[in-house]
Amino acid sequence: MTHIESQIQRKYGTTNTIRRRFHVKGYAMLGIGKTGWIEKAKPECGPLDAIVAPIAVAPCTSDVHTVWEGALGERTDMILGHEGVGKVVEVGSLVKDFKPGDRVILPALTPDWGAVQSQGGFAMHSGGMLAGWKFSNFKDGVFGEFFHVNEADANMAILPDDVDPAAAVMLSDMVPTGFHGVELANVQFGDSVCVIGIGPVGLMAVAGAAIRGASRLFAVGSRPNCVQVAKEYGATDIVNYREGDIVEQIMKKTGGKGVDRVVIAGGDVDTFMQAVTMLKPGGVVGNVNYLGEGDYIRIPRGEWGAGMGHKTIVGGLMPGGRLRMEKLVTLLQTGRLDTSKLITHRFQGFDKIEEALFLMKDKPKDLIKPVVVM
Amino acid sequence: MTHIESQIQRKYGTTNTIRRRFHVKGYAMLGIGKTGWIEKAKPECGPLDAIVAPIAVAPCTSDVHTVWEGALGERTDMILGHEGVGKVVEVGSLVKDFKPGDRVILPALTPDWGAVQSQGGFAMHSGGMLAGWKFSNFKDGVFGEFFHVNEADANMAILPDDVDPAAAVMLSDMVPTGFHGVELANVQFGDSVCVIGIGPVGLMAVAGAAIRGASRLFAVGSRPNCVQVAKEYGATDIVNYREGDIVEQIMKKTGGKGVDRVVIAGGDVDTFMQAVTMLKPGGVVGNVNYLGEGDYIRIPRGEWGAGMGHKTIVGGLMPGGRLRMEKLVTLLQTGRLDTSKLITHRFQGFDKIEEALFLMKDKPKDLIKPVVVM
Amino acid sequence: MTHIESQIQRKYGTTNTIRRRFHVKGYAMLGIGKTGWIEKAKPECGPLDAIVAPIAVAPCTSDVHTVWEGALGERTDMILGHEGVGKVVEVGSLVKDFKPGDRVILPALTPDWGAVQSQGGFAMHSGGMLAGWKFSNFKDGVFGEFFHVNEADANMAILPDDVDPAAAVMLSDMVPTGFHGVELANVQFGDSVCVIGIGPVGLMAVAGAAIRGASRLFAVGSRPNCVQVAKEYGATDIVNYREGDIVEQIMKKTGGKGVDRVVIAGGDVDTFMQAVTMLKPGGVVGNVNYLGEGDYIRIPRGEWGAGMGHKTIVGGLMPGGRLRMEKLVTLLQTGRLDTSKLITHRFQGFDKIEEALFLMKDKPKDLIKPVVVM
Amino acid sequence: MTHIESQIQRKYGTTNTIRRRFHVKGYAMLGIGKTGWIEKAKPECGPLDAIVAPIAVAPCTSDVHTVWEGALGERTDMILGHEGVGKVVEVGSLVKDFKPGDRVILPALTPDWGAVQSQGGFAMHSGGMLAGWKFSNFKDGVFGEFFHVNEADANMAILPDDVDPAAAVMLSDMVPTGFHGVELANVQFGDSVCVIGIGPVGLMAVAGAAIRGASRLFAVGSRPNCVQVAKEYGATDIVNYREGDIVEQIMKKTGGKGVDRVVIAGGDVDTFMQAVTMLKPGGVVGNVNYLGEGDYIRIPRGEWGAGMGHKTIVGGLMPGGRLRMEKLVTLLQTGRLDTSKLITHRFQGFDKIEEALFLMKDKPKDLIKPVVVM
Repeated sequence: MTHIESQIQRKYGTTNTIRRRFHVKGYAMLGIGKTGWIEKAKPECGPLDAIVAPIAVAPCTSDVHTVWEGALGERTDMILGHEGVGKVVEVGSLVKDFKPGDRVILPALTPDWGAVQSQGGFAMHSGGMLAGWKFSNFKDGVFGEFFHVNEADANMAILPDDVDPAAAVMLSDMVPTGFHGVELANVQFGDSVCVIGIGPVGLMAVAGAAIRGASRLFAVGSRPNCVQVAKEYGATDIVNYREGDIVEQIMKKTGGKGVDRVVIAGGDVDTFMQAVTMLKPGGVVGNVNYLGEGDYIRIPRGEWGAGMGHKTIVGGLMPGGRLRMEKLVTLLQTGRLDTSKLITHRFQGFDKIEEALFLMKDKPKDLIKPVVVM
Repeated sequence: MTHIESQIQRKYGTTNTIRRRFHVKGYAMLGIGKTGWIEKAKPECGPLDAIVAPIAVAPCTSDVHTVWEGALGERTDMILGHEGVGKVVEVGSLVKDFKPGDRVILPALTPDWGAVQSQGGFAMHSGGMLAGWKFSNFKDGVFGEFFHVNEADANMAILPDDVDPAAAVMLSDMVPTGFHGVELANVQFGDSVCVIGIGPVGLMAVAGAAIRGASRLFAVGSRPNCVQVAKEYGATDIVNYREGDIVEQIMKKTGGKGVDRVVIAGGDVDTFMQAVTMLKPGGVVGNVNYLGEGDYIRIPRGEWGAGMGHKTIVGGLMPGGRLRMEKLVTLLQTGRLDTSKLITHRFQGFDKIEEALFLMKDKPKDLIKPVVVM
Repeated sequence: MTHIESQIQRKYGTTNTIRRRFHVKGYAMLGIGKTGWIEKAKPECGPLDAIVAPIAVAPCTSDVHTVWEGALGERTDMILGHEGVGKVVEVGSLVKDFKPGDRVILPALTPDWGAVQSQGGFAMHSGGMLAGWKFSNFKDGVFGEFFHVNEADANMAILPDDVDPAAAVMLSDMVPTGFHGVELANVQFGDSVCVIGIGPVGLMAVAGAAIRGASRLFAVGSRPNCVQVAKEYGATDIVNYREGDIVEQIMKKTGGKGVDRVVIAGGDVDTFMQAVTMLKPGGVVGNVNYLGEGDYIRIPRGEWGAGMGHKTIVGGLMPGGRLRMEKLVTLLQTGRLDTSKLITHRFQGFDKIEEALFLMKDKPKDLIKPVVVM
Repeated sequence: MTHIESQIQRKYGTTNTIRRRFHVKGYAMLGIGKTGWIEKAKPECGPLDAIVAPIAVAPCTSDVHTVWEGALGERTDMILGHEGVGKVVEVGSLVKDFKPGDRVILPALTPDWGAVQSQGGFAMHSGGMLAGWKFSNFKDGVFGEFFHVNEADANMAILPDDVDPAAAVMLSDMVPTGFHGVELANVQFGDSVCVIGIGPVGLMAVAGAAIRGASRLFAVGSRPNCVQVAKEYGATDIVNYREGDIVEQIMKKTGGKGVDRVVIAGGDVDTFMQAVTMLKPGGVVGNVNYLGEGDYIRIPRGEWGAGMGHKTIVGGLMPGGRLRMEKLVTLLQTGRLDTSKLITHRFQGFDKIEEALFLMKDKPKDLIKPVVVM
């Protein structure tokens, strides 16, 4: 119990009523490798902020990395989760565009929009590299009864009535991350594209490449469920790494030419070896896979044209914020994108967050993405 | 008869055999307002060039403008047509990648690729503004028994066996022009887009916007046939100018916000007034409509932010050449784009070119695009 | 006297002490065509804001347009001025990076950085077209004893000790506006560039084009003082419109080729006729001249390639904010740019603001820019 | 002696006259590690080509790598050199813009402009990665009495009378390569830039960064001669790797922030470790250093933001061709760039090529760049 909490308890007692007023229950990382339900003081709402209660949330592979691989380093009693839609409970005095009761989409990234990095076009790095990512990283995430949203006017978007909340949860991270890979790779009309990795982010990269004008669209993966959905999202060729070197397979399928663009949405630090090799000069490798391990990414010297091949390599955290959410949700509304194909497991009730997270950790064969609806 | 032709006649006589060897029949502009079948000396094949016989061709509204509006100025005995696929008959000594018998797609634009403008990224203006357009402009077009292709290796693309030649004719001009409007307007994921004009180019702009990530997609037009196809290509809202001011309609439909991008594929010099007015600051108007009349395009001062609104205005001729054709045909092969919806009238036989052209001129209600297959 | 002011007076009396605490004196637009010294309630400092006292300020042609041409419509008792450097007097509770006593550069534009327009890269249009411009537009400007800065952390930059405050005042508007013209025109190494208008903004466009890689650099103007400074900033050719049509002069000087880029920093709605005509296909006209009059900008149809010439036309308000100021001031610190050449008249003392403004209005032959140092 | 040469000898005898007509003398790579003067059949001039005699040439570090490190693999009796200006001796039948007697600048890269790679904006990779580089790579270079230029209209530029031929030789490779690093790194107004390596290419990157708008400009190097010239070209800070880790030095000089852009113009595969570490998120590493050794370029995982830091890495061969040369030479004509500072050693006479090449190989302390004027 913190000092503040003790003070509150001394002042108000410990009845349930008080707990509801001053505490939130949430599913948290207790330390590396350990999770559990905790109670914390309810977050305070600054003048620009909002307090939101979840309507639907989803665990992310990042949550698994955070807890069981310690990808972010030690975190104690931090409520997890950064994918969700919710209902506004409270807004700060300077918030203009939202009010309690509004149903909102929350992006995984809630940048500080006034930071110099944001002014330079990289809000995801506001305040430092990757520091635009706050939920379940620098502050409590969305797996709590209530959670705090910084710069509410700039970081929330209205959830339209005609959009299924569970489908909209995919807009927090899966869609913007997968689509960002496509943006980084700068896919153009008629490009041949290879998406490496077809977990939920990779599948969104496949979908994004298809609705950004790719023609031939190679999806590298093996799980039958994902393969099926990749085809539905527009993959023209499935490349299974269990059936041989993926570079060789793609070179064969392209008559030795390689592809115009590569999106990396899975694998590890060595995946860039393959990506650079299969890429044509003048192409781009766009990475959206969090590289949790390894000292170095290695770029093959010769295949990279001895430093002269104009094979651009870039990786980047998804853009967050309100505008991004507002734009992406219109893709659902107009039927351009159907995120519901990602959702293989649906849970009902706040208490099911734990089960959903462990499902994500265990990754059964038929899993793409679980969602918990309150 | 030209001097050269007289010489040939003196040397070889005038039998039919010789005509077939040295002459080509073609459907030509005889002068402004006049068309007819003519015979001309067969084009010569320089070392970089090819001679091609048509497999399928289509008349274009530009042919109509060229003949009946004198849009390019006077032209005498110029064979018309710049949309076609054909079979290679002869190649020059320096041509490496094509041989007689190859079936090829011809882009309407066949630039000089070594020109400084091409080196600067604007091959359509190689040799001078718009001068990358040669067929039925500076030289005989594709409505002849044989026609000449400059820089054959750089300006032809193989027609794959799995692509219908009639559908591929749409790649010469309709697809690259419509899609270029989308590129100029720089459509991004989730953008709201308005396409003004839904003739065949506008319909390709609609299709292009949809497969480049547009969400809300307004198509401005009124002909029932086109409206139907626009919806099939992805338009979410049809805006009929007969039912009121299109700016007002779009402002109403967007809650007063306007759209992120405008593609102009129809109308006239005054259409920019509407386009700029409905556009958000930071947006782009991409024009691909040939403006045949009027002294000035007018930009409304206030709506353009008194010169300060970051509403970019750009219009451009389609990119031609081999790479463009190679990329676009893969969109047909992978099923991303179905150009056959454009083709409302199919003719069989070289002689039907005249009928197809007059159909284009008369523009009956049910016409989108005619194609003549040999 | 406002109701609030009456209340204050009732409570505290009207001594000078109290005036200093609760009132600010400033030089204001009283209404269209009228200016004068006024007293107003001291601005309140919200949690994100700062209150700043001027160290040095400059009048702008925009101030002249605002007052004597009513360019923004009616404004009553609005303190003028949007170019200045100052000393922080007070900061809001959420301001992190500044404290009273800091010397700061103020950009003319102080956007709302969380707005969706800002998230999309167009902070100058945050909250609506041009609405990122607040000083002497939507709120009192910098010609007061104290003035209010919104989002202080995001809209102020430290004035380094090694930079002359008067020279730094040019960073508020003259430099970012002129340089933005160069950015809009997208000047590249070795480009030929024409800058139309060589008032202080145009001169900064000349300087910006030179340090962005232009080669041949045409400056259109006639005033001897400005001509001299244009040459010092890098103009290679002066084109005097009094000596004949500027398009003809430039065509002659370029062997009929025209220029790669045009920056418009003067003239009126008809200047675009000349700009488009002298521009090569594939080039850009970047406008930073506020167009205060005229219904339409006219674009010449033929010279614009009948809508097909890839001659991009874009005009935009300068980017403001902290990052921009921080970057630009380093150009002064490293000696890349010497803004002091712009300053032809220096005044000492707050009371001289009126004289400086009228100088700007009267525009004597030897004037480029006056600065008032407190 | 080749078969063809034997035939010629049999037919015409072996007098000096005949040698002059049919043979060229040149300084060649005889094999890896071996050089010498050879005679070869005079190159043939195809319809698009030109034969040029050198006016001034320069050896390049690449020539040294090619010969003594075998960087391109084995080459036998290949005349070296790819930096030069010359006089046209003969042009092909299709060449329009040049004639014998014209003095021309030759870019090191002479692409095939019709290739699909060129159409896609990457002419340096026309025909395959790096294959736009032909002189002293795939064909004889400029160290011969005569040499062959492919696509002459597209690959030569007139040497203006007011430009010193020796200074113009720097336009073949040093300027476009150094400047391309600046373009790749996408330097903007007020950026802080680090150029790693200040040999002649790095010095041109320093000069290019300065005239593209950089403010703080760190130059990493140690040779006093180069350091002095780097300062003259605009470096604000010299970072000597002999005085400690360059990352630490730069972090210290930037208050821990790092730089906006890095241009790599020296070092080896491990230089990217430092470049990525000193780079801010959102920045770019632009490499123009040929990486002749090592299996991998290594990118430090953490400093690269675990794949999420938006630190773009790109390396590319210089753009060649006529337009590039025409633009760059105007920078000399307008005095924006003075390449003569690079030239530390001038030789007179064709026979001095050998001495100049060995000077480049031995790299004495005071050498930046030698030039041989005929």
